[in-house]
Order: sequence, then structure tokens, then C-alpha cells
Amino acid sequence: MMYRNSHMEVIGIVVSSLDGYITMHDEEGVGFASEADQQFFHKVLKTFDCCVFGVKTFLIAQSGILRNLSEERLRLVLTRNPEKYADYQHPNMLEFSALGPKEMLTELKRRGKTRCAVLGGAEVYTQFLAQQLLDELWISLEARIFGTGKKLVAEECDIRLELKEFLTLDRNTLLLKYSL
Amino acid sequence: MMYRNSHMEVIGIVVSSLDGYITMHDEEGVGFASEADQQFFHKVLKTFDCCVFGVKTFLIAQSGILRNLSEERLRLVLTRNPEKYADYQHPNMLEFSALGPKEMLTELKRRGKTRCAVLGGAEVYTQFLAQQLLDELWISLEARIFGTGKKLVAEECDIRLELKEFLTLDRNTLLLKYSL
Repeated sequence: MMYRNSHMEVIGIVVSSLDGYITMHDEEGVGFASEADQQFFHKVLKTFDCCVFGVKTFLIAQSGILRNLSEERLRLVLTRNPEKYADYQHPNMLEFSALGPKEMLTELKRRGKTRCAVLGGAEVYTQFLAQQLLDELWISLEARIFGTGKKLVAEECDIRLELKEFLTLDRNTLLLKYSL
Repeated sequence: MMYRNSHMEVIGIVVSSLDGYITMHDEEGVGFASEADQQFFHKVLKTFDCCVFGVKTFLIAQSGILRNLSEERLRLVLTRNPEKYADYQHPNMLEFSALGPKEMLTELKRRGKTRCAVLGGAEVYTQFLAQQLLDELWISLEARIFGTGKKLVAEECDIRLELKEFLTLDRNTLLLKYSL
């Protein structure tokens, strides 16, 4: 009988200003991310066999996402109304789901996935952190201060992490890897 | 004639959660700071001949401040009502001033000070950053996420910094030094 390891690594990936904003002011998306962070993100995403994100993130990034669909990485979009996006659905490449985060991870494991990236936005990070579903959180810390924007977590909490690794992506961008 | 160098180094020092909060929830002060950060802070403060902070910070930390008064470091408290604190005034050790940040720095330079630490809270950091009065910003980044609390800067801005140095104060606390 074959032993099947049921653990799937789940890693949150985020880019943030020094003062903790994951958007610049009320600008949607991460247009503020440095070139170095964008290159890192696209490279590292290739090491995951699935990723999840919210429907707002899908709508902002959809042209890039639709151009890069691949069976090597299932993109799962969390939405209360998956039927609304039926036209975009590409089984095993791009799917829409109303499952909660926990059920969704169970489903991905069942389908044999081993490494899942959680890509935001704020609501999705908040759910995964609050429900303790992340093994690691990777933060690209840009050397900028915005004063306003969306926050990583939208509710009061006190989460303690462990610093696992830190390095520079370029002169002014740090990559900080934390375990949860 | 003696040439007098009129530059005074002005360095903001702050401890922050990973999600950019300088207080934990609505708890005043920095009781959340790690032992390593507190040790660093007390050690590094000795390298400054003056420091400024807001009156709320004074009220929170006053017992420690009053125990440690010294002519080696002038503590200047920014308040709209300095007369209210006349009983606490110790010339050259602890003074209260209604001067704006810029005028206050000019006054400190005039008195021969060479290195000034800006210690918060949020309003004070905001004023010094908005008026571009800091040469450097040092952030102790604790491996914690709070979800709510006071932010470093209380108004929309887009400040770009340069990463100058980064190191760990202990396993989970990073010290990041930025130039402005």
C-alpha cells in the first residue's frame, strides 16, 4: 500500500509598503511593486502547483492571468458567485469556487496538489491568517511609505510569526520569509 | 574664524508590527516591543545628545524618563501647552516646547546639538516625515501582526526611502535602517 503524504504547503505571498499597506492609497492592485519584486513573484509562482486569490484580484489581473493559463498550476478564484464567471472557467487551469478557505485547501489536497500560494487580496489574507491556514508568509517590503491603503489583515488579532529567512531582492526591496 | 558645521543628524526611531502598527490595538505605548528591541533602544539612545517626542509619549513613559534625566541628553517634549508641564521642566534635561518641528530643530542646532532622535508618537512621526526633516528612519520590525493600532503616518503620502542597513536584533526582530 502506498503512503500518501497529505500535507500541502500553503504560503501567503504579499508585497507591502514599510507602513504595512498592500495597496497604494485607493489604487487597486500592486502597481507600486518594484521591478525586482515583480520578477521574483513571477519566478517563484512557477514553483507552486496551485494558487488561490479573491475575485477582485482576478478582475484586476485578468488579462495577464488569461494569457498564462497552464495545467501546471491551477488558479482557484474565491467568490460567492462562481456561476457568474462560468465563461472564464478552464478546468484544472482556472476555476471559481464558493468554498471556504479550509474546504478549498482540503479539495486541492484531494486533487493531489502539494504547494499552494495564497495571493490576496486583503480579505483572502485575513481569512487564511485568522483560520491559521498558512504555513509561511512571504513579504516583499518596499522602501516606501503610503499613509493610506488596504491593510494585510482587516480585523484585530495578535499573530506571532517566526522569521525564517531574509534577503534583498534589490537595493531597496527586502524579502522576509516568516513561519506561522 | 571657526567654521561651524550646522548639520544635525535627525533620526526617527520606531518599533512596528509586520502590518505596520506602532501600537498594539488601542494599547498606548510600545509594551509589545521585544526585549531585544528595548535593549537596542536604550543602548542606541545614549548615542544622541537630544531627542524629541510628543506629550502623549511623555505621559506614558514619564516615570522612566524622570528617573533617567541627564544633561548628556536633552529631552524635548512637543506640546501646544508647555506651561501646563512647567513643574516637570528641568532646563537642558527635560523641556516642553510649543515650537513646530522645523523651528524646534533649528533651536536644537543653535544650542550646539549634533544628533537628534525622533521618538514619536504617530503625530510626531507624521509631521517630521511630511516636512522631510528626517535624515534616517530606523524601524524595529517585530514578527507580529496586530490588524489594528496606530499607524506610523496618519495621512496619505508617497515617501520613497533607501535601505541603508538591515540586521537582526534577535531571532524574530529585524532592525531596518533607511535614509530619506
